[in-house]
Amino acid sequence: MKNTIGNNVAVTLFGESHGNAVGCVIDGLAPGIPVDETFIKKQLNLRRPSGEISTPRAEKDEFIIESGVFEGKTTGTPLCILIPNLDTKSADYSDMKNIARPSHADYTSLCKYGGFADYRGGGHFSGRLTSALVAAGGAVLPALKNKGIIIGTHIKRCAGVSDRDFSNIKKEIEFLNDTDFAVLDEKAKEEMIKNILSAKEQKDSVGGVLETAVLGMPAGVGEPFFDTVEGMLSKALFAIPAVKGVEFGAGFKIADMNGSTANDEFCMENEKVVTKTNNSGGINGGITNGMPIIFRTAFRPTPTIGITQNTVDLKNNQNAVITAFGRHDPCIVHRARVVADSVTALVLCDLLSSRYGTDWLAK
Amino acid sequence: MKNTIGNNVAVTLFGESHGNAVGCVIDGLAPGIPVDETFIKKQLNLRRPSGEISTPRAEKDEFIIESGVFEGKTTGTPLCILIPNLDTKSADYSDMKNIARPSHADYTSLCKYGGFADYRGGGHFSGRLTSALVAAGGAVLPALKNKGIIIGTHIKRCAGVSDRDFSNIKKEIEFLNDTDFAVLDEKAKEEMIKNILSAKEQKDSVGGVLETAVLGMPAGVGEPFFDTVEGMLSKALFAIPAVKGVEFGAGFKIADMNGSTANDEFCMENEKVVTKTNNSGGINGGITNGMPIIFRTAFRPTPTIGITQNTVDLKNNQNAVITAFGRHDPCIVHRARVVADSVTALVLCDLLSSRYGTDWLAK
Amino acid sequence: MKNTIGNNVAVTLFGESHGNAVGCVIDGLAPGIPVDETFIKKQLNLRRPSGEISTPRAEKDEFIIESGVFEGKTTGTPLCILIPNLDTKSADYSDMKNIARPSHADYTSLCKYGGFADYRGGGHFSGRLTSALVAAGGAVLPALKNKGIIIGTHIKRCAGVSDRDFSNIKKEIEFLNDTDFAVLDEKAKEEMIKNILSAKEQKDSVGGVLETAVLGMPAGVGEPFFDTVEGMLSKALFAIPAVKGVEFGAGFKIADMNGSTANDEFCMENEKVVTKTNNSGGINGGITNGMPIIFRTAFRPTPTIGITQNTVDLKNNQNAVITAFGRHDPCIVHRARVVADSVTALVLCDLLSSRYGTDWLAK
Amino acid sequence: MKNTIGNNVAVTLFGESHGNAVGCVIDGLAPGIPVDETFIKKQLNLRRPSGEISTPRAEKDEFIIESGVFEGKTTGTPLCILIPNLDTKSADYSDMKNIARPSHADYTSLCKYGGFADYRGGGHFSGRLTSALVAAGGAVLPALKNKGIIIGTHIKRCAGVSDRDFSNIKKEIEFLNDTDFAVLDEKAKEEMIKNILSAKEQKDSVGGVLETAVLGMPAGVGEPFFDTVEGMLSKALFAIPAVKGVEFGAGFKIADMNGSTANDEFCMENEKVVTKTNNSGGINGGITNGMPIIFRTAFRPTPTIGITQNTVDLKNNQNAVITAFGRHDPCIVHRARVVADSVTALVLCDLLSSRYGTDWLAK
Repeated sequence: MKNTIGNNVAVTLFGESHGNAVGCVIDGLAPGIPVDETFIKKQLNLRRPSGEISTPRAEKDEFIIESGVFEGKTTGTPLCILIPNLDTKSADYSDMKNIARPSHADYTSLCKYGGFADYRGGGHFSGRLTSALVAAGGAVLPALKNKGIIIGTHIKRCAGVSDRDFSNIKKEIEFLNDTDFAVLDEKAKEEMIKNILSAKEQKDSVGGVLETAVLGMPAGVGEPFFDTVEGMLSKALFAIPAVKGVEFGAGFKIADMNGSTANDEFCMENEKVVTKTNNSGGINGGITNGMPIIFRTAFRPTPTIGITQNTVDLKNNQNAVITAFGRHDPCIVHRARVVADSVTALVLCDLLSSRYGTDWLAK
Repeated sequence: MKNTIGNNVAVTLFGESHGNAVGCVIDGLAPGIPVDETFIKKQLNLRRPSGEISTPRAEKDEFIIESGVFEGKTTGTPLCILIPNLDTKSADYSDMKNIARPSHADYTSLCKYGGFADYRGGGHFSGRLTSALVAAGGAVLPALKNKGIIIGTHIKRCAGVSDRDFSNIKKEIEFLNDTDFAVLDEKAKEEMIKNILSAKEQKDSVGGVLETAVLGMPAGVGEPFFDTVEGMLSKALFAIPAVKGVEFGAGFKIADMNGSTANDEFCMENEKVVTKTNNSGGINGGITNGMPIIFRTAFRPTPTIGITQNTVDLKNNQNAVITAFGRHDPCIVHRARVVADSVTALVLCDLLSSRYGTDWLAK
Repeated sequence: MKNTIGNNVAVTLFGESHGNAVGCVIDGLAPGIPVDETFIKKQLNLRRPSGEISTPRAEKDEFIIESGVFEGKTTGTPLCILIPNLDTKSADYSDMKNIARPSHADYTSLCKYGGFADYRGGGHFSGRLTSALVAAGGAVLPALKNKGIIIGTHIKRCAGVSDRDFSNIKKEIEFLNDTDFAVLDEKAKEEMIKNILSAKEQKDSVGGVLETAVLGMPAGVGEPFFDTVEGMLSKALFAIPAVKGVEFGAGFKIADMNGSTANDEFCMENEKVVTKTNNSGGINGGITNGMPIIFRTAFRPTPTIGITQNTVDLKNNQNAVITAFGRHDPCIVHRARVVADSVTALVLCDLLSSRYGTDWLAK
Repeated sequence: MKNTIGNNVAVTLFGESHGNAVGCVIDGLAPGIPVDETFIKKQLNLRRPSGEISTPRAEKDEFIIESGVFEGKTTGTPLCILIPNLDTKSADYSDMKNIARPSHADYTSLCKYGGFADYRGGGHFSGRLTSALVAAGGAVLPALKNKGIIIGTHIKRCAGVSDRDFSNIKKEIEFLNDTDFAVLDEKAKEEMIKNILSAKEQKDSVGGVLETAVLGMPAGVGEPFFDTVEGMLSKALFAIPAVKGVEFGAGFKIADMNGSTANDEFCMENEKVVTKTNNSGGINGGITNGMPIIFRTAFRPTPTIGITQNTVDLKNNQNAVITAFGRHDPCIVHRARVVADSVTALVLCDLLSSRYGTDWLAK
């Protein structure tokens, strides 16, 4: 389905970086969910470029709800959100349109779309489309919260610096969701920002790892074999430009453990089944077990850099060099955090709707 | 779609470990693909338990093609493969059916299916279902090869031991596909097996990491945003029981690189656009760029172990202990290798069929 | 999705007329539905050829539940039913394999599958595959009944003879579901059978119209715009070979009415909203309104006839003649009745599961 | 998928009658299709109300292409079209919002959406949403034409008057596509219009039957069992508000034929396989046979009428009466014609893309 994801709550994404607008349609939401435009705006602000560590492109991200909301609540019919592109400088791109930017989608786009794609600013491949995902997430996150399901992401690693692990997830999620640069350890945060600025000065860029936690998911949600919670989330997370890896619970580290240390022993706690450890990241057999869902997403460094690189001229099929053009970010990890939350929220809505029916989320 | 994956080439999986049979239906295959039952059998043998390092359950994996093949070739209509369960010892399970095995799906299955699922040997959650995926993969791998697309997987890491990296991928894929325990470095292989046996002796289990390479994929296959090659593959890979992480190209390591080192510079080589490095794992913007597709899959250690563990009795909601019952593997990584190849093949067939139409694969 | 239908309850169909078996996989059924094999057998018998008015091919339709049922109830995981082909006489077909039977799928199959399809007895296009749909329907009809939802079909018209309309639907559904040749008016039934036999004697065939009624569907099920009850049912009904038309409520006749006569006025009855007439067939805006769902399905006469017809030899691309070969039915309308019920049941399960979640049907 | 239809070319519909806008997203179109905004405008004009026989609501149907078109051609990425609502008079509806309009979706919407749906002017159920389908159709019809595939619809029957049958389809399609009130027989047209006006004078409404022809579809397109051409088209056609029946070829009349008259004999004509008759409507076994695809769609009379009707007050659950409010059409059949063409075009693009791959339509 290309630009649509989800079975019962489905999101369709559209738009190009320098076209009229980007946007999305969310179909299948329960009717009666209060939609808080101020909250959506706040979420969009968390994604917006901020100061020196981001691109100077200053999109206001003013969004228009074109359908699906009536008297402040979801109608249950498709919710379309449009985010017009206002601060576009397309001229930046015309000269260089045949010079493939390394590790961008310029070359693959040519192979797939035969030169008809809108090349300006990455076109449909631009990270700008994630603003629509954030707006969509902003429409459903409060409904999830109302059902006791909260989501938060911190920058686990950035520019070579690690944040500390989650320890009191509930409190930390609250803290993170009100923080611009979402790091738990203040010192780590300062060092990350310092390193980003240093990379920027060197006309280079950095990447990082986001770690997301979900609290409050009921046990028994998800499907074998293909609509597993891991499979559904990973498919959606790989839609975020720059993601190259996704791992759940102990992730790649679990490969080095023994069964006796990796296994999460069950025990009763307040008449509830819980596990003593959470190496499985809240998921067994693809299905939630009621423990926190924990996963990490690896982001490559922004491919656009000011350092001159070797590449090819796709028109003339010959070697060429390229030096960054367009406005760009030395790091997008801190901006991507709210995208991860949003994508997670949308996938969970889909899984919950499949499990409990159309109306559950608004009850 | 739960147990169905794929848009144009779709696979539906069914069966339980101790039921009549496991099997699958592959729909959308090009008509006219030669189906080599000997090759399918060989693939199934690569997945079968082997000697001391595997479970003593000795399923012959005799398969029956119920439909979709006529005079040795695919008809283009649904291909159903059935693999009867023959060596089942269900009595092993009846006593312990309410004792949740740690990090198994027993508890989540109860939450989802309310006690109606077939609990014997993990039921529908059993790794046994992957035999159907292997048979399905066996039906399409030769067709991909015929189009110049070859797939191979080695055990990159197992029981704390690392294999060397791919160096001459084409040759190594050929080597791996004829090897029972797929490791490139003979020394590493011996050490892995030694460690598996040592874990077994301690009634424990080990995990590992598989690394898969695909050669020959045309550039321009895959879709933004949600049907990316990464998203499609990862969703399918997380269907393999025990997988907790998937990464492409440089994967999680790319998060620590700078843009200038992570970027794959393009250059012309024999009038073809190639990249000098392959940190992107053959995929930019979710679309193949013609370079080898490289990814790694993290496997947790087998959750069934002979060491006594704490857990809960789900019937009486009270703490309990469990010591392994049923037959089990100290390691499944070497058996999972051919599952990874198969799942990869099926996803690629789907993507290729979407891109080039129904008939392409058999042309 | 070709041979798969349904979003939350999905049915995948496979098999060929003269291959090993036909069958289906039903995925997404609520766990805990009692599966009554005797009832499934009874349903299959309603579809089986019967006496003089049907084909002499005598398949026993013995079915095997390969997965998804445990201790007599659905597990919630995929339910695979296999129906082996036993009474095949493939030799009947080999001589004539290049002679396209008029109004059969021989020619279109060649265009689509390039000659690789199994031509024997219509291969995958055979009406024989509907036995798998009937078995699948047999698995869910009792669960629907348990929720107060009953389905019945009568032969509204056959061989030029009309049955009377439904008058007391509930009673009539009970009557029809225990009747071999499902006609309400005994006289009409006799005349239909007489006409079928007369057509048979003339080596010809006849068609007819089935009318299906569904009682007890809750109001508020179905979706705008594309997953309407009409759209979902019609898509499934057109899967029954020989169907060329589907109409709901007053159907094509409504085109000749005025709004004032076509409109179904609402009124309160026992504190429930009902309509005085039911020209809409229980559906407004694609969504159930709680009134009986009524629709009619037009069946073409069986294309295989004993009268010599003009056609083409597809191998030599020249005109040819054909006289019926293979065993065939002078009429399939009476056998198709239970297929219509089954297909309807499966679609309703899907719609209900989408609306009320996974578990509803078994509650 | 509710408001999304299509596998490889997918259309997602959104909007409400009195909200900001209606619109759609078309995903999966081949890159490089010239998009002719003048033609789209022309198509929208064919759907717009016209003079006395239509509603006085005067929407200009100015549309905005928000994405997916670059330098006049499709990019291959999602094409979003927005049609703002300008001439809304919502006050018309507020008084009567709890009075269910007979045969409208007011009551079923309440049952499904629990009172959260936008009730004004039918909300999401409004025929106004078909303007987005027409715009979408307008984007692809020229591409189909370029491949030799043309589509045309005439009003086969309206207000009790029949048009003559197609005789020279190619010429007639050209004629119809430039005609406002699409009838082949001028006399029939005059009588239809007279009868519509007469119904209008009586504050009543009329329905009709559309007949659509498709020329030039290659043989071998479509799928067994569920993605048949009939099933795919009918599902899409039932999305058009007011449709209550769909039939192909001889349709319901075929039920009264014998096999010997209903069968379409094959013969060679100019080295091509054709059929002498076309009772199958160009489709055998769900797959195109290269003959014209012919189908008819039954439209109920507009449910909104000026005559007072009995109904219920849904707020107080008591009987009530209603007299038409809002602006409405005495007949929508002539306006629906271009909707049928558009929906047909979109379904065919999907089927063709599944068959021949992503790029075929623009080649």
